[in-house]
Amino acid sequence: MTNSISHQRQWLKHSVSKLFVSVIGIAMATSIQADFPDARASDPAVLQWMVGSPPPPDKTLRFDDGSYFTFPAMRWSVSHFRQLMPTINVSRGLGHASSLSTELIEAIDGLTFIPLNADKPITWEESLWLNYTDGILVMHQGKVVYERYFGVLKPEGQHGAMSVTKTFTGTLAAMLAAEGVLDPSLRVDHYVPELATSAFGSATVRQLMDMTTGIRFSEDYSDPNAEVWAHAAAGNPLPKPADYEGPRSYYEFLQTVQAEGEHGEAFHYRTANTDALGWVLARVTGENVASLLSNRIWKKLGAEQDAYMSVDSIGTPFAGGGLNLGLRDLARFGEMIRNHGYYNGQQIIPAQVVADILRGGDQEKFAKAGYSLLQGWSYRNMWWVTHNEHGAFMARGVHGQALYIDPTAEVVIARFASHPVAANSANDPVSLPAYHALANYLMNRP
Amino acid sequence: MTNSISHQRQWLKHSVSKLFVSVIGIAMATSIQADFPDARASDPAVLQWMVGSPPPPDKTLRFDDGSYFTFPAMRWSVSHFRQLMPTINVSRGLGHASSLSTELIEAIDGLTFIPLNADKPITWEESLWLNYTDGILVMHQGKVVYERYFGVLKPEGQHGAMSVTKTFTGTLAAMLAAEGVLDPSLRVDHYVPELATSAFGSATVRQLMDMTTGIRFSEDYSDPNAEVWAHAAAGNPLPKPADYEGPRSYYEFLQTVQAEGEHGEAFHYRTANTDALGWVLARVTGENVASLLSNRIWKKLGAEQDAYMSVDSIGTPFAGGGLNLGLRDLARFGEMIRNHGYYNGQQIIPAQVVADILRGGDQEKFAKAGYSLLQGWSYRNMWWVTHNEHGAFMARGVHGQALYIDPTAEVVIARFASHPVAANSANDPVSLPAYHALANYLMNRP
Repeated sequence: MTNSISHQRQWLKHSVSKLFVSVIGIAMATSIQADFPDARASDPAVLQWMVGSPPPPDKTLRFDDGSYFTFPAMRWSVSHFRQLMPTINVSRGLGHASSLSTELIEAIDGLTFIPLNADKPITWEESLWLNYTDGILVMHQGKVVYERYFGVLKPEGQHGAMSVTKTFTGTLAAMLAAEGVLDPSLRVDHYVPELATSAFGSATVRQLMDMTTGIRFSEDYSDPNAEVWAHAAAGNPLPKPADYEGPRSYYEFLQTVQAEGEHGEAFHYRTANTDALGWVLARVTGENVASLLSNRIWKKLGAEQDAYMSVDSIGTPFAGGGLNLGLRDLARFGEMIRNHGYYNGQQIIPAQVVADILRGGDQEKFAKAGYSLLQGWSYRNMWWVTHNEHGAFMARGVHGQALYIDPTAEVVIARFASHPVAANSANDPVSLPAYHALANYLMNRP
Repeated sequence: MTNSISHQRQWLKHSVSKLFVSVIGIAMATSIQADFPDARASDPAVLQWMVGSPPPPDKTLRFDDGSYFTFPAMRWSVSHFRQLMPTINVSRGLGHASSLSTELIEAIDGLTFIPLNADKPITWEESLWLNYTDGILVMHQGKVVYERYFGVLKPEGQHGAMSVTKTFTGTLAAMLAAEGVLDPSLRVDHYVPELATSAFGSATVRQLMDMTTGIRFSEDYSDPNAEVWAHAAAGNPLPKPADYEGPRSYYEFLQTVQAEGEHGEAFHYRTANTDALGWVLARVTGENVASLLSNRIWKKLGAEQDAYMSVDSIGTPFAGGGLNLGLRDLARFGEMIRNHGYYNGQQIIPAQVVADILRGGDQEKFAKAGYSLLQGWSYRNMWWVTHNEHGAFMARGVHGQALYIDPTAEVVIARFASHPVAANSANDPVSLPAYHALANYLMNRP
């Protein structure tokens, strides 16, 4: 390795962050707590990151040296991304927020359930600590029944949604398809000719939306040649080193993606699909994803706060993972979906889009991805569909971001977290049975 | 000059921006239009900056190469700073916005007045184009009588306030002094011992608040050794070049400031004073200026939008110039001040603070600064006080940012602009008589 390449690698490792990538589905050891300080010991409010004028050097977090996304420092950063990098606003407009009526149910904290691969029950409240929860809000039949914040997240703050971002991008695409603005059966290069020579060009927009493209895109962080590093380097808004020769924006990166396997054969969870979809949406509408999200959803939802997205060096929002939003607004979005797209006095998303999500994607194609904890699930319009007896479906992001909708129990659960392990397989054994137990409790309580 | 220093200089010139500095009072040629495209020709919406996916290379603006702050590109950038650099939120909280009742007066556009140093009258509407206005809102007796947006600024957008930021910082300091939390008669090093060996250490907090410190701080951009460049380099959140040896934060820079002249002798407009004041406020309250502004003013004002501030590499808000906010919220702030600190059903700022601003500062000390267009004015708590027959006073920022309050006429004027010339002496000959003429018109109309 030449000095030049070594320098570039070092720069990548230091300045590129896990924020820009997403990992889901890597089987993780279940005994997380043995390797990382627990939620109380790693509480970012207790650890006093970035407190003081100036903060002490060992409590100062920076984007450029990567310190901000080491654990436990990342527990502060996930609530403060905008202080570390450029962002684009997702305006709520200037009107009143829609009201969220609240009837808290105190008994929820004591609800018990048995985690997967465990033999003893734990309480709901214990599960929040086990999962390094930063904030969680539960709605039942349209009312807030549980709402709690930990660490440095506050009701008026915004938290990184990670790959929950994809669900917003996918939902926007499905909306535009329902309106006839976008035809998912057409090839990607019909909309974005620049992608013709990449692996994306011959895929259909529907294959992007359901992540069944055949592209080479490793998200294995331990491999320095994984495409995820080139993707992150391209999207990093910091100046590139003088000897950097790679792509300098998400759009440039996407044009370099090579084929691997056949389109339409199997579900392969790849962040690059969502960024390619974001490009399609921008080309079709003349608006970037942040603008679309504001005009199509945020302003109509009566969101309480503006949201925001990280951007690359030419202002492209990171459609695959850059959204930051308030917990209560994430719950509003979920409640709107639960109500078949109707919320705040208007039909925001066509009911047929929600019906399409509820039906789910192809379970056989999903099974080929081999998620041991998600057997029987599918993926549609960038939603994860459980196909359980309640027909629950989810938006999911690394480190424990989640929006869980149980239409049968009329329950919506919005959660932000900063679990030390990126892959949700690290928190699913506790999270998934907790959500289902709570849904059962709420729908059956007298 | 060694290669290393040359490289550093080049980096400074390219990556450091005028955003981080402020110039006021340099006598400028009056025939601006001869040198720059006029407001219509330089309209950022017409020029299509950052439009497209991706935008064309010659329409792409970047922070790191300085392209974003060249004219006319800067006309886009002043409404999009957060897309170019890290920022910290100034939350409005989650409540409803205070209402702004509107009774537009169409006749205002045709109002005529004679600019300073001119012999023919122009109309109010013409003055907006001459001053490269991005947005202007006029309130009379608590009602919006005029509101207009140009270029890429929208009611729901935020615009750089430039040195209008100082007025917020100075007002916060005066509030804390009125509450007894801060004693302006004490020396700066009483609150910030780290400043003891700098020129600031021996100044009083009051001297910071009124900019009568004796410090060496040239804001002459044409001089590569001017302190303003070191200040900007220190505050720049981008990674420093390997050979950079200067201060790496606003706080580090402030400790290097040397004495020049005596404290308390004369008004010297120096951005560094406000940053030092921001440090004092952070030390006294445990909150940075962005947090103070949110908790003390923004949430109480019923602001319509969150505001935000640029930050340095360790998260310090730029107290001297980093604020971005909505035009309507700037008007709310002005209306609150006009109402002696009372607004939205509560006393937000002690009336004695506003009374102190209305009395103004020391006119003799102000006169020593030699502002030919501002004769008879003074400076108090980082407000510019005209001492005209109406007792008008202003917040002022480079490129034409202004908040003008005429207590006699019961008029508040909030203006954002992107004039090609930083110094307000370039727009004052049109702006100041326009404001006064409009105030007279509104107070005398039947």
